[in-house]
Amino acid sequence: MYRTHTCGELRSAQIGQTVTLAGWVQTLRKFGSITFIDLRDRYGITQLLFGESLNKALADNPLGREFVVQVKGEVTGRTSKNPQLPTGDIEITVQSFTILNKAVTPPFTIQDDTDGGDDLRMKYRFLDLRRPAVRKNLELRYAVNRAARNYLHENHFMDLETPFLIKSTPEGARDFVVPSRMNPGQFYALPQSPQTFKQLLMVSGYDRYYQIVKCFRDEDLRADRQPEFTQIDCEMSFVEQEDILSMFEGMVKYIFKTVKNIDYTDVLQRITWEEAMWQYGNDKPDIRFGMKLLNLKSAFTKGGVIVAKGELINGAGFGVFDNAETVLAIAVPGCSEYTRKQTDELTEWIKRPQIGMQGLVYIKYNTDGTLKSSVDKFYNEEKLKAIAAAAEAKPGDLILVLAGREERTRKAMSELRLEMGRRLGLRREDEFKLLWVLDFPLFEYAEEENRWVARHHPFTSPKPSDVEVMIANSPLIENPEKYLEHPYNHIKANAYDMVLNGNEIGGGSIRIYQRELQEKMFAALGMTQEEALHKFGFLLGAFEYGAPPHGGIAFGFDRLCAILGGSESIRDFIAFPKNNSGRDVMLDAPSTIDEKQLKELSIQLDTSGRDSL
Amino acid sequence: MYRTHTCGELRSAQIGQTVTLAGWVQTLRKFGSITFIDLRDRYGITQLLFGESLNKALADNPLGREFVVQVKGEVTGRTSKNPQLPTGDIEITVQSFTILNKAVTPPFTIQDDTDGGDDLRMKYRFLDLRRPAVRKNLELRYAVNRAARNYLHENHFMDLETPFLIKSTPEGARDFVVPSRMNPGQFYALPQSPQTFKQLLMVSGYDRYYQIVKCFRDEDLRADRQPEFTQIDCEMSFVEQEDILSMFEGMVKYIFKTVKNIDYTDVLQRITWEEAMWQYGNDKPDIRFGMKLLNLKSAFTKGGVIVAKGELINGAGFGVFDNAETVLAIAVPGCSEYTRKQTDELTEWIKRPQIGMQGLVYIKYNTDGTLKSSVDKFYNEEKLKAIAAAAEAKPGDLILVLAGREERTRKAMSELRLEMGRRLGLRREDEFKLLWVLDFPLFEYAEEENRWVARHHPFTSPKPSDVEVMIANSPLIENPEKYLEHPYNHIKANAYDMVLNGNEIGGGSIRIYQRELQEKMFAALGMTQEEALHKFGFLLGAFEYGAPPHGGIAFGFDRLCAILGGSESIRDFIAFPKNNSGRDVMLDAPSTIDEKQLKELSIQLDTSGRDSL
Repeated sequence: MYRTHTCGELRSAQIGQTVTLAGWVQTLRKFGSITFIDLRDRYGITQLLFGESLNKALADNPLGREFVVQVKGEVTGRTSKNPQLPTGDIEITVQSFTILNKAVTPPFTIQDDTDGGDDLRMKYRFLDLRRPAVRKNLELRYAVNRAARNYLHENHFMDLETPFLIKSTPEGARDFVVPSRMNPGQFYALPQSPQTFKQLLMVSGYDRYYQIVKCFRDEDLRADRQPEFTQIDCEMSFVEQEDILSMFEGMVKYIFKTVKNIDYTDVLQRITWEEAMWQYGNDKPDIRFGMKLLNLKSAFTKGGVIVAKGELINGAGFGVFDNAETVLAIAVPGCSEYTRKQTDELTEWIKRPQIGMQGLVYIKYNTDGTLKSSVDKFYNEEKLKAIAAAAEAKPGDLILVLAGREERTRKAMSELRLEMGRRLGLRREDEFKLLWVLDFPLFEYAEEENRWVARHHPFTSPKPSDVEVMIANSPLIENPEKYLEHPYNHIKANAYDMVLNGNEIGGGSIRIYQRELQEKMFAALGMTQEEALHKFGFLLGAFEYGAPPHGGIAFGFDRLCAILGGSESIRDFIAFPKNNSGRDVMLDAPSTIDEKQLKELSIQLDTSGRDSL
Repeated sequence: MYRTHTCGELRSAQIGQTVTLAGWVQTLRKFGSITFIDLRDRYGITQLLFGESLNKALADNPLGREFVVQVKGEVTGRTSKNPQLPTGDIEITVQSFTILNKAVTPPFTIQDDTDGGDDLRMKYRFLDLRRPAVRKNLELRYAVNRAARNYLHENHFMDLETPFLIKSTPEGARDFVVPSRMNPGQFYALPQSPQTFKQLLMVSGYDRYYQIVKCFRDEDLRADRQPEFTQIDCEMSFVEQEDILSMFEGMVKYIFKTVKNIDYTDVLQRITWEEAMWQYGNDKPDIRFGMKLLNLKSAFTKGGVIVAKGELINGAGFGVFDNAETVLAIAVPGCSEYTRKQTDELTEWIKRPQIGMQGLVYIKYNTDGTLKSSVDKFYNEEKLKAIAAAAEAKPGDLILVLAGREERTRKAMSELRLEMGRRLGLRREDEFKLLWVLDFPLFEYAEEENRWVARHHPFTSPKPSDVEVMIANSPLIENPEKYLEHPYNHIKANAYDMVLNGNEIGGGSIRIYQRELQEKMFAALGMTQEEALHKFGFLLGAFEYGAPPHGGIAFGFDRLCAILGGSESIRDFIAFPKNNSGRDVMLDAPSTIDEKQLKELSIQLDTSGRDSL
């Protein structure tokens, strides 16, 4: 037996016992003829005292940091207790020790604030994983996993495994594929999600399904995306949207309570997709703070009176506003005293290529009630006051205004709002605000292909009231310029996202469960009947044998863990992540395979076409 | 809301309540003007009563089997109760109903004893999954999953996810590979097991790891093997073999108790690999019954006296025995009265190509103490009695004897033993006997390659007492005929298998954790230093930074569930299995992918080399 106790469990109650511990040498300190060692394992740290009698043994078998050792000794009370450590009341007076394994000097220090760069830490991930910060992340991940499973189990969900070697159905993201040796020339695909399988399980009557499962998408990797990622994937039968919202609101609250000891008692706020776009400029608003977007050119209601579009700011001779499709404002609280330098810096910020705006207009609503703006020569104080009122600003606020094409301006203003929230410390890592975003559009218009694509996926049902619109109208777009006028553009989906602190953590929908409607949907997406049958014949078939109404949701498990852990980066919450080129630098994967393997798989390399892609 | 209750929950306590149920029409029966329907969901069956007033509605909206319906009605007491059903005291007097979805006639009956053949059921797996027998299997699977997780959690194991897109290291079984689009000409491999990752997690100090995880092997599929399968994969630090055996003995007993309510209180029997081969002819003996193999030509001890090799049966002029490398016997209890027809049939059985023996010798040890054999002309009664004594037979037994080359004869006798056990009803599906098989050989000699391969895997440590033998001897085999004499042939591994009812359900080992020994092992397997570094450099590197002693085990989850469910076939315990050609016939996968996908992946099809493989 290597140990009688772990390094985290001994207390003063055990004083006098002879124990054996094993672990890693965290630190070595010598005081005169006595050596102190902090011995570490997953469970904690215990101080070891090597007395004078062991000095010869230590000289013959010198210990170093990260050595793995086994020690036998007596639990003794400490003269100077360490209240920071659970084991701080005791130490082990070592009688004998054995070096189980040596350690060379690590390439970076194994501490929370490591000196290792990203690449080095990834190459030596097994050492990076020793850092307390990383271990805490993975412990949190396991706690979330366990909490989700317990909640779902209590609510009669069953973990049912779905296959990983499935069929490639290019629709949406790119599949990873796997050549089949036994079926030459054919390929499996790795699942982007278990979507169709969980729907089949509903057809089979399993009623409530869940899985915490790896999914795969061969997309160009933006920062903080992984080619393989984990979902908490769920599906329920005989449910309407309301049933799903309440079930999974419950799950996330249960996770908050179990993992973070947070009582999230508020009912989750709900907002429609249109409201989200209008008020926050994006569909996953961070509602830890206000600063809603106000559209100064659109009609809005003020004191019961509808202010006509543009009236407020047009016609003052300021071309930037007069000619803009959209003029958006936010009122940044308490920033009216920004200096010229600060407003200039903000202007530079929104001009960066990532944001890409031409300029920024500001109005300082001073605490004494006066107003000062960068457009004083166009707008008198009365007019500025009206604008400030429209922007719902209070004295002391700094009103920031952007103007331009609607989509870009909205996006830029959303970014500016988030940035100002960050600068003002309104986006606290330890504050958690959940939100449901509802009523997403069912379709999106894909310009390059001149066709409609499913915003969520092709299995999402339209709002019942919009089914007729979908069936009655052809998906054809005769004049691409005018796609906004197509009736499809107004069809809403029975789809919902859960948003946490400005991140989409889960999304789902009520599904189509009738063959006829599903066929209409495939046709709306431009699939011929033959294509639809080839790709999804099994699902269409299944819908004929008694498919129940059903719906579900999938949570991005990596992301959920990261946010709960107070981080923006999912990579810190994955034991063995890949870098931005999809490489595992520790393994050096992917790598070449030998000719024999290629031959067995009936494939050849062909890198000739690369340049033309 | 689609339902107020499930179909399994209403009792007489709810009589008088108005409820809404939803589910599938299981059966329809008409008695005069009244229609009875059994409504089914995952939770049970509830009887519905449609009175005369609904006859017009039923005529306008005729219901059929497997239709999905929603009904509203009052819970009423039943005049003729059904004690077979938990809901058998009540029925629903229907007030109104809605057809949620229709169903066409299923291609086979959805009952335990279905008329659907294998292929048809696989094609319509979503209907097959509705059969109670299959649902029970998947419910059992989930229960085992849950029990394993709970046990491991209580014992401080952490579920830590390891990657699926890893590096191909051809050693052992064939990898499935995944072409990387972002790294043209390079491939990921899907993991055959998370072996190296879980070892790295031990190096990282995670101490106790588990995962219930999909693994992949591209092997030719024998019956009841799947290209993707699930393991309960575990690893522990600072452990010796004994720690692992006791921990996982505990886990399986916990599963027995939780899932099957079986108190498996016996300490698990242990047997060495050599004993297993000697006594049962294979390394996963079914110990639900005796009938051990006795070697009539090898030395054995009888009443303290060593009987010399062959003395017993040689020299009687019976060439089949005289010239045989091995003569093996089993004593089949209570079968001394087998007829000639029966013994002839057994002879035919062992002559089948799958067994491939030339003939069978029998000795009937009659209940009156007399003996009668098929070799009476060579052996007198006294000699037969001696043989019977050597075979540990009792009056009433039928002694079956096979002779020939050792390996084949042993294998055949093992099969014969199992067959006789089956015929005598000694292999009861509801009896569970666990066994540890220990001390496996570390190496196996691969004739085709004239080199040693790892019997378990290259990370398994030799028995401490055998380390020196391994280090001191070269792996080179100069005379392949004499490989049995090579010292490597006697090196035992710190490896163990858990066997349940004659099936290996788990296997593992204490691992090598020193770089030097691991390098020796790679060299013993014929790897050059360069190859070892290329394939496993990350692991060798990790061993230099303070690797703790560690070991683990992996359970075949599909198999474990199948045996607990009383089945030999894992396919019935997998929601969406593949057939023997690795195809998912429901999805029609694998399938061809389009030219654009191939091009993006920088590969081409090349089926030209197929014939030469």
